[in-house]
Amino acid sequence: MQRYVAAVCRKAGEPLRIEEVVVAPPEPREVRIKIICSSLCGSDVMRWRMSDQSAIFPRIFGHEAAGVVESLGENINEVKEGDIVIPTFISDCRECEDCLSEKSNHCSKFPHKTSPWMPRYETSRFTDSEGEPLYHFLNVSSFSEYTVVDVAHITKIDPFVPPNKACLLSCGISTGFGAAWKTAKVEKGSTVAIFGLGAIGLSVAQGARFCGAARIIGVDMNPAKFEMGKKFGVTDFINPKDCANSKPVREVIKEMTNGGADYCFECVGSASVVCEAYASCRKAWGKVIVLGVDLKSNVSISALEILWSGKTLTSSIFGSLKAKTDIPILLQWYMNKELNLDDYVTHEVGFEDINKAFDLLRDGTSLRCVIWMDKNHAHCHL
Amino acid sequence: MQRYVAAVCRKAGEPLRIEEVVVAPPEPREVRIKIICSSLCGSDVMRWRMSDQSAIFPRIFGHEAAGVVESLGENINEVKEGDIVIPTFISDCRECEDCLSEKSNHCSKFPHKTSPWMPRYETSRFTDSEGEPLYHFLNVSSFSEYTVVDVAHITKIDPFVPPNKACLLSCGISTGFGAAWKTAKVEKGSTVAIFGLGAIGLSVAQGARFCGAARIIGVDMNPAKFEMGKKFGVTDFINPKDCANSKPVREVIKEMTNGGADYCFECVGSASVVCEAYASCRKAWGKVIVLGVDLKSNVSISALEILWSGKTLTSSIFGSLKAKTDIPILLQWYMNKELNLDDYVTHEVGFEDINKAFDLLRDGTSLRCVIWMDKNHAHCHL
Ligand SMILES: [Zn+2]
Ligand SMILES: [Zn+2]
Ligand SMILES: [Zn+2]
Ligand SMILES: [Zn+2]
Repeated sequence: MQRYVAAVCRKAGEPLRIEEVVVAPPEPREVRIKIICSSLCGSDVMRWRMSDQSAIFPRIFGHEAAGVVESLGENINEVKEGDIVIPTFISDCRECEDCLSEKSNHCSKFPHKTSPWMPRYETSRFTDSEGEPLYHFLNVSSFSEYTVVDVAHITKIDPFVPPNKACLLSCGISTGFGAAWKTAKVEKGSTVAIFGLGAIGLSVAQGARFCGAARIIGVDMNPAKFEMGKKFGVTDFINPKDCANSKPVREVIKEMTNGGADYCFECVGSASVVCEAYASCRKAWGKVIVLGVDLKSNVSISALEILWSGKTLTSSIFGSLKAKTDIPILLQWYMNKELNLDDYVTHEVGFEDINKAFDLLRDGTSLRCVIWMDKNHAHCHL
Repeated sequence: MQRYVAAVCRKAGEPLRIEEVVVAPPEPREVRIKIICSSLCGSDVMRWRMSDQSAIFPRIFGHEAAGVVESLGENINEVKEGDIVIPTFISDCRECEDCLSEKSNHCSKFPHKTSPWMPRYETSRFTDSEGEPLYHFLNVSSFSEYTVVDVAHITKIDPFVPPNKACLLSCGISTGFGAAWKTAKVEKGSTVAIFGLGAIGLSVAQGARFCGAARIIGVDMNPAKFEMGKKFGVTDFINPKDCANSKPVREVIKEMTNGGADYCFECVGSASVVCEAYASCRKAWGKVIVLGVDLKSNVSISALEILWSGKTLTSSIFGSLKAKTDIPILLQWYMNKELNLDDYVTHEVGFEDINKAFDLLRDGTSLRCVIWMDKNHAHCHL
């Protein structure tokens, strides 16, 4: 039994504790990975904070990461020991009807669910010093020196890509960029509105700029996001706080775009923002793409409005990207300086300071804080 | 002042009364038309029955028709006296940004609204024998010997097409066929579910068959619709009444289609059926296309379901067809026997029997009852 350290969450909203854990060897079609670094995503924070009946602890969070393959379970040809990989919460099994289809990036063999187990066996690979199992998170659990990930959730990458940039493509940045590029297929010259300028929203902006959008409107309550947004393609900024007393956001967007944005991306995770996005997009051909996770609410739209507006409501999971095919493409674009990943990394900390990363994301100070397992790599920007 | 007869609705749900009316000459960009025949559409019946605050009487209904151009307002080159035309509730002005765009068939110059006036001047061309104005319906009002229609709402057709078939393309049949062909672009080999097998739903079936759908599932409470549906391409039938006690329609469809239909068409006009259609379509790539008019309800879907399902919700107005471009194409297909219009015409009556047409549609006996202005043409199938 090999003992490593991991940052364990034992209770909703409490600081993670660095503990000794046992990481079991990989089962068939699983890979054990030595984590190089992780970046903290909003989904980690959301689930860490959540104390309702869906909360499951003790748990190891972390799902944006880069690592080295340390050992292999049986029946694996895709990777070998020493390969650099990034894990993804989404599966790309390459066997099921969905993965073999070009129509989507959903996997019907390992469909997304908020299971706290390994996807193939519904068991845990982590135990704590008392011998009690620790729960997994989003098929990754990278806040640990070592973790075990199913081969369907691993993408091999070019070892020359800096790991603190590669890890960003595990989730948020791919989700946003892909939503504009692959889900919406933003047309050249079109208008785009983005609700929420966190890392995902800013990546939508970058994807929309990449596709040639003429105008990219960012909507966020934090005025500091506009300067940040400019780096990623945002051309106009609306602060809903400024609108509240005069006219609603939807009216401001309609005025700016001659009737409504061609594409509206919801990156907040709020059913009411989905409705605002629906109202803000262009009659006849406007599309709303939902990216934000709202775990409880319903989106309610008048049936007559759906019929007569001609608008389309859809969603994007991992930006409609197939992980194993598309992540290497995005990393190549990064190496060619066609994709900006550097500006997302606003902070870097050592593993012992992982709770600072949570503070920085929660108060809106950081876009992405990279957490290095080896403290010699951490150039703390705090 | 020319006096003609028209079927006037003076009160919600009461039989239409054949009255003498005055039909004013066409204003600039308007055309006065001698109606040859009309077919009765569900929207006529819905509005005739509706007694809430949106109800506006006295009114002349009828919006599926064929006629002859009798006189022209100023500034018209598109048609001349004697041309055979069919009116459409939807505008194809060929001037506005939307009409000039290939992206949709909405018109931003004369957007759809339930206005009781002529679209360009917001006035009426009808007065009754007391000199009081009569309201228009859906820019057409064809239950009259003569009517005035804006040139944006007129399509010139081949005079050799039988008018009692051509008139069907004014609304319902175009809406359904186009929804499969142009809105959804149904893929060869795909699975389709259609909620509601009235004339619109049966036309969706015909459009889906035309596109090569492998399986076309009709859902209707009336078991007689299945035999009818077979003529238009329906391959399987579900009666929700049979499902109620065992499993919901969504589960039956999922079993029949290995996880959900690729396309679900809502042709009932019920927010709850929109939700059932959403639940019945394939995760990852399923599309729901709303065609039915529900004037009051909201569609409510869980935000998490929208995000994780990857499904798309959209609508179809007039089947995404551009009237002046696409109606002649459909009529050519009819003349080539590639499009079945004959089987929709289950009944034909003379103008004096127009109230029978309402009875036949309301009780589900007829798909389309053609109402001939000249009784010599009416081959009554009653
Ligand atoms: Zn798969
Ligand atoms: Zn994430
Ligand atoms: Zn127009
Ligand atoms: Zn109609």
